[in-house]
Amino acid sequence: MPQDREDAFAWIDAQRERRDRAGLVRRLSPRPADSPLLDLASNDYLGLARHPEVTAAAAAAAHRWGAGSTGSRLVTGSTELHTTLERELAEFCGFEAALVFSSGYAANLAAVSALSGRDALVVSDADNHASLIDGCRLSRAEVAVVRHADPDAVRKALDANEADEADAGEARRRALVVSDAVFSVDGDAAPLAALAAVARRYGAALVVDEAHGLGVLGEGGRGAVHGAGLAGAPDVVVTATLSKSLGSQGGAVLGPARVIEHLVNSARTFIFDTGLNPAAVGAALASLRLLRREPERAARVRTVAMGLYGRLTAAGLAAVRPDASVVSVRAPSPEKAVRWAADCRAAGLMVGCFRPPSVPDGVSRLRLTARGDLTEEQIEEAADVIVRTAPAA
Amino acid sequence: MPQDREDAFAWIDAQRERRDRAGLVRRLSPRPADSPLLDLASNDYLGLARHPEVTAAAAAAAHRWGAGSTGSRLVTGSTELHTTLERELAEFCGFEAALVFSSGYAANLAAVSALSGRDALVVSDADNHASLIDGCRLSRAEVAVVRHADPDAVRKALDANEADEADAGEARRRALVVSDAVFSVDGDAAPLAALAAVARRYGAALVVDEAHGLGVLGEGGRGAVHGAGLAGAPDVVVTATLSKSLGSQGGAVLGPARVIEHLVNSARTFIFDTGLNPAAVGAALASLRLLRREPERAARVRTVAMGLYGRLTAAGLAAVRPDASVVSVRAPSPEKAVRWAADCRAAGLMVGCFRPPSVPDGVSRLRLTARGDLTEEQIEEAADVIVRTAPAA
Repeated sequence: MPQDREDAFAWIDAQRERRDRAGLVRRLSPRPADSPLLDLASNDYLGLARHPEVTAAAAAAAHRWGAGSTGSRLVTGSTELHTTLERELAEFCGFEAALVFSSGYAANLAAVSALSGRDALVVSDADNHASLIDGCRLSRAEVAVVRHADPDAVRKALDANEADEADAGEARRRALVVSDAVFSVDGDAAPLAALAAVARRYGAALVVDEAHGLGVLGEGGRGAVHGAGLAGAPDVVVTATLSKSLGSQGGAVLGPARVIEHLVNSARTFIFDTGLNPAAVGAALASLRLLRREPERAARVRTVAMGLYGRLTAAGLAAVRPDASVVSVRAPSPEKAVRWAADCRAAGLMVGCFRPPSVPDGVSRLRLTARGDLTEEQIEEAADVIVRTAPAA
Repeated sequence: MPQDREDAFAWIDAQRERRDRAGLVRRLSPRPADSPLLDLASNDYLGLARHPEVTAAAAAAAHRWGAGSTGSRLVTGSTELHTTLERELAEFCGFEAALVFSSGYAANLAAVSALSGRDALVVSDADNHASLIDGCRLSRAEVAVVRHADPDAVRKALDANEADEADAGEARRRALVVSDAVFSVDGDAAPLAALAAVARRYGAALVVDEAHGLGVLGEGGRGAVHGAGLAGAPDVVVTATLSKSLGSQGGAVLGPARVIEHLVNSARTFIFDTGLNPAAVGAALASLRLLRREPERAARVRTVAMGLYGRLTAAGLAAVRPDASVVSVRAPSPEKAVRWAADCRAAGLMVGCFRPPSVPDGVSRLRLTARGDLTEEQIEEAADVIVRTAPAA
């Protein structure tokens, strides 16, 4: 028996060496409970993850409902607390119904795969989040990946599909157009109204991921879909996370009641997953109520993001004009991006550092999140550190 | 424009009608905080989800660390609490390292897809859980689905693979054998020692899902892999849930440090998901410590399961001899299974009801979970209700 037979994971070492040589090894750096760093890296856009009302609601829910949901949502994993959150979330965002998942990732896998299938076409934006891409893969549908934020590319894909059907004399097959509302890496918004119009023209449904839109865009943070006047449309489905603006964990799908009922009956990541834990449900519900009570929180995030963007571009940095809460700043190379982020950290500022393979275009950048609870002084301090530590191009 | 163009989801109504006619429509029945029902349906095997130490730990973690982890584990989503849980879980189960995910589903997607790939073969038990199957689909590997609990079928698949390679003059490709430790539906255990021996003979790695093994099997609940003497083996990887015996939410992958490091760098459901919320991390850690302190809890579950099985078979019901905590009882038809579960519920007993399409063999059954905290009286009461309400074959 040859020696390599004995080592089932030898290939991992080879991959590790390649990663090492490319300077792309990732390591976890766990944070303490009370970090002295100024946080511009998290997705806690409204600063609610540590809001006393929200953490108290999490604690109260754990005491009242237990530490876990104890089973699939179809067996013992649905509590009345889940139902309350689903009802209030749907109402807030303007949809008929909502369904809560254990993560936004699971919600996206569910929405894309259960609303398409082997006999369907999915038209997917090239910069969509990994969870939407994995949803496409799981769906076994034909997937047309189209140019980023390009409704005309979507139109062409749907048109080609229709022509194929006509040629083959086939019945119309299901088609689904899938897009992030706000793209995670560059923080730019999708052309939702145009996408919806194209989809509708071809009888396709539209799935929009509001991960970075909920709590930030639309009236009082109702999301980009609400802002585009598409909330509650019969052919529009929204996915959302409870882990960003709502400061908790979990995901949701919002849409027509029949779509939600369909997911209950067919979405594998709903049926075969354990329900979201009560503390997370309680926290998300508390955040949602807080946001409804203080709608100005959403506008504040956008103001912070524009303020940060203004300071960085004024200093000559290549930042992308933010449509929501993410401000992306380009770095000359992966190594320089890593060094830049480390220098920020040494100066007391935590920033995100995105580089291959987690960027769609191979361009490394700092990713800054403008939290709504940052003060003017903190914004100024953050901008100063970023500018001061910027690498030469 | 034809009328059906206007309704992107018309196909959902057609599916719903088919489901309705087959009596297979699922509906959520949310439970109150204090249900009067006796619970034999949840996966809270040790009864820890509502243990005061566990719920207090969840509450304390939410207060101290926040309601959400606020980001990807690679950015802000790793707290020192996550690291503590990972270290103690790995130690307890006898592995070098562990990595916590937001769900067991996500952990399975990660382990299977990141340890195989397009150039790999995955040999997967026909009754594996949906999340392992989805991991196979996402991996893009060649997948050989083999007969349930059959090491010889695994051998044949690995042998055929090797013969193909030899014919083609190709280098050895990665191979992964994937199995549940305890199968969810029938509660039977996998032949782990035999599977590991076969895998090793062919230089394949073995991935075992301990969702229903952790806390129940092995010394003090260390799991079936530990019980089979395979813990810490260089070619064995374990996945686990924090949502069953540990009464919380989340999942984990345990294995050699290089495998865990590989997942940190390449597993999409790790990199692109938000970290598990602190309350769930704290609760799982508290449960783990409780189990370490009170190892008899694991044996108790098995005693309860055997007691329940004994009573049901003595009364003539077709129950499967439980290897762990799940007792499966066959029902004559999906309709009768649903009616049986409803009759149990009316008599104060909550049982699981599995039927197509969530059963691998098309056989409907009641699924009973023997919780370790059930009293002798409760076990007797449960058995009485099940026997009394049993349908005629």
